[in-house]
Amino acid sequence: MTYCVGLLLNEGMVLLADTRTNAGLDNISTYRKMFTFEAPGDRVVAIMTAGSLSVTQTTIARLTEAIETQDESRSIMHAPSMLGVAEIVGTTLGEVTHEVRGKMQRQDSVSASMLVAGQRRDGGMRLFLIYSQGNFIEATAETPYLQIGEHKYGKPILDRVITPETSLADAEKAVLLSMDSTLRSNLSVGMPLDLVVIGNDALEITRARRIEAEDPSFQQMSQAWSEALRRAFQEIDAA
Amino acid sequence: MTYCVGLLLNEGMVLLADTRTNAGLDNISTYRKMFTFEAPGDRVVAIMTAGSLSVTQTTIARLTEAIETQDESRSIMHAPSMLGVAEIVGTTLGEVTHEVRGKMQRQDSVSASMLVAGQRRDGGMRLFLIYSQGNFIEATAETPYLQIGEHKYGKPILDRVITPETSLADAEKAVLLSMDSTLRSNLSVGMPLDLVVIGNDALEITRARRIEAEDPSFQQMSQAWSEALRRAFQEIDAA
Repeated sequence: MTYCVGLLLNEGMVLLADTRTNAGLDNISTYRKMFTFEAPGDRVVAIMTAGSLSVTQTTIARLTEAIETQDESRSIMHAPSMLGVAEIVGTTLGEVTHEVRGKMQRQDSVSASMLVAGQRRDGGMRLFLIYSQGNFIEATAETPYLQIGEHKYGKPILDRVITPETSLADAEKAVLLSMDSTLRSNLSVGMPLDLVVIGNDALEITRARRIEAEDPSFQQMSQAWSEALRRAFQEIDAA
Repeated sequence: MTYCVGLLLNEGMVLLADTRTNAGLDNISTYRKMFTFEAPGDRVVAIMTAGSLSVTQTTIARLTEAIETQDESRSIMHAPSMLGVAEIVGTTLGEVTHEVRGKMQRQDSVSASMLVAGQRRDGGMRLFLIYSQGNFIEATAETPYLQIGEHKYGKPILDRVITPETSLADAEKAVLLSMDSTLRSNLSVGMPLDLVVIGNDALEITRARRIEAEDPSFQQMSQAWSEALRRAFQEIDAA
C-alpha cells in the first residue's frame, strides 16, 4: 500500500508521500512515489503515485519520455495549463492501466491512482486526483486536501486542523502527523518519506525534503504527539 | 456500514455499537446492533453485529429462538463455556450466510461479522470476532480490543491509550472518542449509540446506556476532544 496526501492552501501546496512498495509480505522494497518537474518561472508540477508499481512506473516513464522527446501533445511541460497537465497524466495512466489489464487474468486486480499538483505561469495552483481510468477530480476551498492509498487512519487529524487559511508550517506538521498515524496502523506504509512544499506563485519547488526512518526531528515530533494525545485524553471529561 | 468495538480489560469489558443501517444512500434506518443475553450469576453474553442486515437479523433471530425453545445444542444460554457460545454463534452465522448467498446472484456480496463478548460462571471474560463463514478469533492481552465494520478511523486512539490495565472509565471515554472519529469521517456510521459495560466476574450487565444524537454530555466530550486535539497540535514542535 501507499499513503500520499496533498494540501491546497492559500499560501501554497504541501505534499507528502511514503516510499514502501510490497508484493506480498515478504517482498518489501523502497520506491519513490513523489516525482517533480520544474521549469522555474514557467511551471512546477509534482506527481504522487499509488497502486500497481508496473502501472505507475510505466506511466511516469512515458510522461518523462514525452518531455525528453518534446512531444508537444503529450509533454506535461508543454501543456498550456494545469488542466492540460491533468488531462495528459489521466490519458497516459488510463492507457497504461488498460494495457496492463489486458495482460492479466483478473482484470480488475490492476489499478493505480495519482495526485497531480502544480502551477503554470498566469494560472492558479491546482491539485488533482487522477483515477485508473484517467478521469479526475480537483481539490477546492471546501475540500482543500486529497489523499490516495491508505487514507483513513490519517484523515481525522486533517479534518480537524486543515482549512485553506492554514499556514505552510502548520500544514507540514499536519501532513506529517497524518502520515504518523498511518505508519503506526498499517505496516504496508513505510519510511522514508518525501515532503515537497510549493509556495503560491513560486513557480518552482520551494522546499523538498526526504525524511529517513531515523530522522531525529520526525521521531521527536511523533513522540511529542503521542504524549500530547495521551495528555489530552486524560484532561477531557468522559461523556 | 457499521462501527462496533469491544475492549477486554482486567476490570471488565466495554462494548460500543452504532445503529445506522443503509441500503443505498437514500434508504437509511436505525437498527440495534447490540444484543445482550443474561442469566445473572450464571452468564452474561453481548453480541454486536456488522454486515448484511438480512444475515445478522436472521442469525440473531435463530439464536433467540434456540434460547426460547431451550434447544440444548443450539442455545447460547446452555453452552458450557464462552468458547461454546462462540461456536454456536459461528455455526449459526455461517449457516445463515450460506443460505442467503445461495439466493443471491453475486454470492460474495453478502457477508456479516459479529463480536461476541461475555463470561460464564467459573470461566474468564472472553471476546471473540466471528467471521461470515463461522470461524473466529479471540482478543488477548497483547491485542485487547476487536473491531468490526468501519474500523480504521477509530483505531489510532485505541492503539495509543488502551492496554489491559486501562480503567473502565478511561476505556469508556476511549471507545466513545474512537466512535466520534468514525462518525466524523464516515456518514454511514450514525447515532444513536449503544454502550454496554460488563465488570469482571459480575456475570451480568454492569451498565447499559443508549446515547442519543442530542446527548449533551457526548456532544460536550466530542467538542472538548476537538479543542484538546487542536491545542495539542499547536503545542508540539514541527519535525
